[in-house]
Amino acid sequence: MSVISITDVLAGNFPVNESITVHGWIRTRRDSKAGISFLALHDGSCFDAIQAIVPSELDNYESDVLKLTTGCSVKVTGILVESPGQGQAFEIQATAVEVLGFVEDPDTYPMAAKRHSIEFLREQAHLRPRTNIGGAVTRVRNCLAQAIHRFLHSKGYFWISTPLITGSDCEGAGEMFRVSTLDNENLPRDDAGKVDYKKDFFGKETFLTVSGQLNVETYCNALSKVYTFGPTFRAENSNTSRHLAEFWMVEPEIAFANLSDAADLAEEMLKYVLKAVLEERPDDMAFFQQRVDKTVIERLNSVINTDFVRLDYTDAITILENCGKQFENPVSWGVDLNSEHERFLAEEHFNGPVVLQNYPKDIKSFYMRLNDDGKTVAAMDILAPGIGEIIGGSQREERLDVLDSRLGEMGLDTADYSWYRDLRRYGTVPHAGFGLGFERLVAYATGMQNVRDVIPFPRTPNNAAF
Amino acid sequence: MSVISITDVLAGNFPVNESITVHGWIRTRRDSKAGISFLALHDGSCFDAIQAIVPSELDNYESDVLKLTTGCSVKVTGILVESPGQGQAFEIQATAVEVLGFVEDPDTYPMAAKRHSIEFLREQAHLRPRTNIGGAVTRVRNCLAQAIHRFLHSKGYFWISTPLITGSDCEGAGEMFRVSTLDNENLPRDDAGKVDYKKDFFGKETFLTVSGQLNVETYCNALSKVYTFGPTFRAENSNTSRHLAEFWMVEPEIAFANLSDAADLAEEMLKYVLKAVLEERPDDMAFFQQRVDKTVIERLNSVINTDFVRLDYTDAITILENCGKQFENPVSWGVDLNSEHERFLAEEHFNGPVVLQNYPKDIKSFYMRLNDDGKTVAAMDILAPGIGEIIGGSQREERLDVLDSRLGEMGLDTADYSWYRDLRRYGTVPHAGFGLGFERLVAYATGMQNVRDVIPFPRTPNNAAF
Repeated sequence: MSVISITDVLAGNFPVNESITVHGWIRTRRDSKAGISFLALHDGSCFDAIQAIVPSELDNYESDVLKLTTGCSVKVTGILVESPGQGQAFEIQATAVEVLGFVEDPDTYPMAAKRHSIEFLREQAHLRPRTNIGGAVTRVRNCLAQAIHRFLHSKGYFWISTPLITGSDCEGAGEMFRVSTLDNENLPRDDAGKVDYKKDFFGKETFLTVSGQLNVETYCNALSKVYTFGPTFRAENSNTSRHLAEFWMVEPEIAFANLSDAADLAEEMLKYVLKAVLEERPDDMAFFQQRVDKTVIERLNSVINTDFVRLDYTDAITILENCGKQFENPVSWGVDLNSEHERFLAEEHFNGPVVLQNYPKDIKSFYMRLNDDGKTVAAMDILAPGIGEIIGGSQREERLDVLDSRLGEMGLDTADYSWYRDLRRYGTVPHAGFGLGFERLVAYATGMQNVRDVIPFPRTPNNAAF
Repeated sequence: MSVISITDVLAGNFPVNESITVHGWIRTRRDSKAGISFLALHDGSCFDAIQAIVPSELDNYESDVLKLTTGCSVKVTGILVESPGQGQAFEIQATAVEVLGFVEDPDTYPMAAKRHSIEFLREQAHLRPRTNIGGAVTRVRNCLAQAIHRFLHSKGYFWISTPLITGSDCEGAGEMFRVSTLDNENLPRDDAGKVDYKKDFFGKETFLTVSGQLNVETYCNALSKVYTFGPTFRAENSNTSRHLAEFWMVEPEIAFANLSDAADLAEEMLKYVLKAVLEERPDDMAFFQQRVDKTVIERLNSVINTDFVRLDYTDAITILENCGKQFENPVSWGVDLNSEHERFLAEEHFNGPVVLQNYPKDIKSFYMRLNDDGKTVAAMDILAPGIGEIIGGSQREERLDVLDSRLGEMGLDTADYSWYRDLRRYGTVPHAGFGLGFERLVAYATGMQNVRDVIPFPRTPNNAAF
């Protein structure tokens, strides 16, 4: 078989008044009194279905066509013609309809042609890509992923697959998943009576990674421009619309670069990928605009066309202290900002994306570069109207003595970071990077309110279904 | 900073006789008696280094330049000129050399400029991308990954991120890693005294996936053309050159397609991505040809230019029985083929890639489509000279009654497959797909003998370092 995609047919890539065969699933069937049926047929290749007009003269009109319901799969052959009606440029005058698969008991088919709640769809994660919204999310998600790879590749970045299973718990074991093949009903014990991880698959205790950053820095210090795009994991008991236990992250890392370079790359990348969505998925974006978020296209255009504000944390504190607004969480220099503060800055004060930078060192990680003031580090968060923080990054501390004293201040043992320290011992270079939560980006681009609805099979506390 | 990549300089993208600044690491330094130093400077953007010619007149010539050793990082400014020597088109007449980072104790620097054993490099996984071979592998790996995304995207396939953490152990829990947040020193117990996974993070026992196929079939049955490209895991105690506990897999899945369509796509994709490597990474491929595998370029060209043989398992058995060769493992209809048989077919009998198809059902998985003979299933393995099996695939069983009887034959419980069976209950369609082990592809394309050397941080039994 060489199957024709409906997106190519609707794009006018096939000659009219000639025979064509398409495959897909029934979205709706409508029968006219004149003895004609209209089938809306979709195959997921684009948002729109194609209309097939089926005359009652077909041999299996009564036996098959009149039994077609939403979700049935068919092969339709007919003459491609220009559509006289509105909306669609082409339709098919069917000469044969072959049923590939009926829907068993249509009355109980979960994806029957009606509106479903987003929560119901989540429970039917194996069927929700068949819905308008599920298909649109999937196509936009794919578009964003392809655009990220394409953008970074075109700028000379190499994709690096950092490991998922890690033996180092440098970033906080409390929020990590353990990976093990030990028999839990009969755990091996060492002499002290503790679980003996020497007997485990990797000969030690291992976890799922929370970030590829430390690992990818090793490649950055050899190939200059690199990035990760892979799954990361957090064993946080967070039941929010912004958290998943398993999610995808994009982490570019740039050698011979400072914080400003990282912010430049982040801004350029965000604009590039959002532009790609508007250009390549107008069908799906029109749907999101109509049904999910009336402002989504305007919002994306605004991000694409606005220079991101660069603002020091210290100046942000001054703005927040003097804005006259009462926040639930009081603001003063040294506190970590809350969502309410971030949204005020991005949505009310600047009404556009903000790169907030140079945070107090005490609220940031050990690997972020200490600024000359001795009080702040070269860290940034990018805040966007409508979602808040979408990117976090920093220039990395490339000076071994400063790194070691930061490790000491935080009560961390330099011995646990020997390979990370090697990068500073051998030809160290200024470098910087950032992390973009991919599901948050998809949610932002589509207007979807919950990251659980933009990943095929979300993993959250008490849920690993399918 | 806006850093110039050495690959762009060597490609002639900058005007000669003008000033330029490049950043990188010293590969070698050579001093002439005339008081000039030659620095070979690389930044990982391509295989080659650029030569900087440093006159002794520079202020820091004695204090810095003469102390530069392999691995030191520098910023070099100078006049870009056409190179009079062989090999390189351009070089830099340095007017300033700024040292960014020296190498601490050069005598013990693990990546000193000499040849290292592949095993030694594996132990220094955080530094090996700095070597010629480490850089070349990384660039080819990236080229292959980009080409896979580009190829599938151009053909209308959507990338689907299937879950890594899975609650279903449908594919054999014995080879899976458990994922858990339970406190192993104090495991909760149920009334029967067994470990109580209801108290675990996901409320049940969970594992790392061994394949995204069953999950991605749900998206195939909605969007027609889809693929996964993500990490998969096997807790096999296999210490071979072809096995990793954590590896990346590409799994396209095609609706309205049969086994032959899947084989067509696999053949076209393999040819496309290998061609991309030859066209886009001639520098690295010349290195592999010279140092790793004298036949690698010829081998890739042969795959690109040869039609893959399609051969039924039954005919393969006849060939093997009559070839007059003594195999360690005797051959008869019904046995699974060993590596010796596969290599004989691909390397001696056909001397080219072979799609071996229609295997006995008893040696294949439940989801593979039963052929009309009732004895074989529509499964395929693609065998390539020099590596053996590189792709495995099948047409999936889309008929609910046949699927159920296959599950029964194999002693599996249909209740465990309810969502998978739903795909057959609701608008089922013929579909097919395959899986490509990405590290095996990188090894094949580079001539590297061990998959541990083509992934940044390999995970194998007793090894999860870094």
